[in-house]
Amino acid sequence: MAVYTDVSAEELGEFLKDYDLGPLLSFKGIAEGVENSNFLIETGRGRYILTLYEKRVNRDDLPFFLGLMGHLADRGITCPLPVKGHDGQALRMLAGRPAAIVTFLEGVSYRRPSATHCAALGTVLAGLHEAGKGFGLSRGNALSINGWRPLAEQAGEGADKVAVGLGQAIRNELADLEAHWPRTLPAGIIHADLFPNNVLFVGDQLSGVIDFYFAANDALAYDLAVCLNAWCFEADYSFNLTKGRAMIAAYRAKRPLNRVEIEALPILCRGAALRFLLTRLVDWLNVPPGALVRPLDPMEYWKKLRFHQGVETASAYGLMD
Amino acid sequence: MAVYTDVSAEELGEFLKDYDLGPLLSFKGIAEGVENSNFLIETGRGRYILTLYEKRVNRDDLPFFLGLMGHLADRGITCPLPVKGHDGQALRMLAGRPAAIVTFLEGVSYRRPSATHCAALGTVLAGLHEAGKGFGLSRGNALSINGWRPLAEQAGEGADKVAVGLGQAIRNELADLEAHWPRTLPAGIIHADLFPNNVLFVGDQLSGVIDFYFAANDALAYDLAVCLNAWCFEADYSFNLTKGRAMIAAYRAKRPLNRVEIEALPILCRGAALRFLLTRLVDWLNVPPGALVRPLDPMEYWKKLRFHQGVETASAYGLMD
Repeated sequence: MAVYTDVSAEELGEFLKDYDLGPLLSFKGIAEGVENSNFLIETGRGRYILTLYEKRVNRDDLPFFLGLMGHLADRGITCPLPVKGHDGQALRMLAGRPAAIVTFLEGVSYRRPSATHCAALGTVLAGLHEAGKGFGLSRGNALSINGWRPLAEQAGEGADKVAVGLGQAIRNELADLEAHWPRTLPAGIIHADLFPNNVLFVGDQLSGVIDFYFAANDALAYDLAVCLNAWCFEADYSFNLTKGRAMIAAYRAKRPLNRVEIEALPILCRGAALRFLLTRLVDWLNVPPGALVRPLDPMEYWKKLRFHQGVETASAYGLMD
Repeated sequence: MAVYTDVSAEELGEFLKDYDLGPLLSFKGIAEGVENSNFLIETGRGRYILTLYEKRVNRDDLPFFLGLMGHLADRGITCPLPVKGHDGQALRMLAGRPAAIVTFLEGVSYRRPSATHCAALGTVLAGLHEAGKGFGLSRGNALSINGWRPLAEQAGEGADKVAVGLGQAIRNELADLEAHWPRTLPAGIIHADLFPNNVLFVGDQLSGVIDFYFAANDALAYDLAVCLNAWCFEADYSFNLTKGRAMIAAYRAKRPLNRVEIEALPILCRGAALRFLLTRLVDWLNVPPGALVRPLDPMEYWKKLRFHQGVETASAYGLMD
């Protein structure tokens, strides 16, 4: 978490002249997001987040991400709303980088969400899937099933430096997933990275969903599998059935899961665990010297994957018929 | 600029129970200050800055710093006011570190302050010197004349790696300053680090003075010399006489300088330049691998020192009789 690009008050004051936001009252670089530089700014009109997109974000994807946030916010999802300048555009340049201003959302992220929080997450996730319908742009999910083999190859022999036998275990799992991955599930726009740090709460009330920079078109139930992985395990990697049950029930109350989705849930959970295992593994093996960001532990997702490998039906996650 | 210590919403929520600040509404780690971890927090009562004091700050000094901010704020200086908990204490522990909450101040720091800003700075600096009278605690300035030789020795041969001949030039300057340093000037509490990044403005209105973690008892006019160095040079290291004149005149309008202080101003400016040259040089030569903070260029202050070496009277800084 870091601010990669420095912006002066003078530059930012000039930049804001393209908006109808009033005078600049304060701005602070904030330690949020691992890919971009973010600033919490206050103007005469209120508080906003200014993001400078650094090189890990593909600029061609920015209209999709910003358009999606606008589409969802218009449909009642509490997500950041991109602010348009006098020219009607939300995306412009600052300090040599693509930059956008979005509305600020109150709330904090919980590191250890409760079953109540998991239920709130299930509701908003289903709401997000429903609200995503009719969004005019699409974006393939480069980090879905077809993207995993290249990641596994990129990690290569390095996997065994992290844990003996991990490389072979990944290759076995990958072959099995490729052979059995469900490819005809109901699809739409998914968040694809809805970890607790991307969801804000005021007390137990969910107040916001942020960081849409992995959003893409993919199986909706896969998004639920990502959330089961990210929200329902305890620190000792045991699966908390109460949390899973709360999340799934809340999701289904807003968007029903069909029989095929329910049957696919265990393999989707394995896939989601492998996806985060692989990206973390590659990051872990490629920390540049002097890096500002400490990589996340890949083994967390290896242990979660092992749990899913022992699951036979979605009832193990708390799904009740 | 970085956040060194991670704090969870859960921990912070617990911590806030010792205060009368209402519920936690948001918090963001902010990239501010090179020595401590800072968070901008919002509670039911408003916005605050939470600081976790990292190891470079001597814990024994914290009552001085926090007490001083309270003393100055009570006397009308717009500086952060430490917030006391239910027990009447402003200083407590969080995440294994001493921690304090202070009020949030609006405003932005200008990187290229104008003469108007320099005048505002002169006024607030004199106000700060007046308001410091009667503060019950004192703290020696470890980075004043007696602290420079140890720093020069610490840099040692390394100085010549930065610029050929720099080591000898520093030794010559140091010997001359030690021989002629004025030791009987009017003294009191000085900020000692009042650079533009520690002063906030809303438009041209000075809205706050922050970061008192170098404050100490020392010659008041030395503080003015620090500010002349930090505010009145242009990017090409030329001294801007209009800015100097504005700062000094505004200062004197609120706190007159006596004849001895005026005569001492050139040597005080040399001393202030050497102080920042030395600390930057030591930091420059001791960047740990993987450092989160890029050191500031020591040569900036070498060039400023060279300017001061050619100054004969305070009129060169814009002081008018």
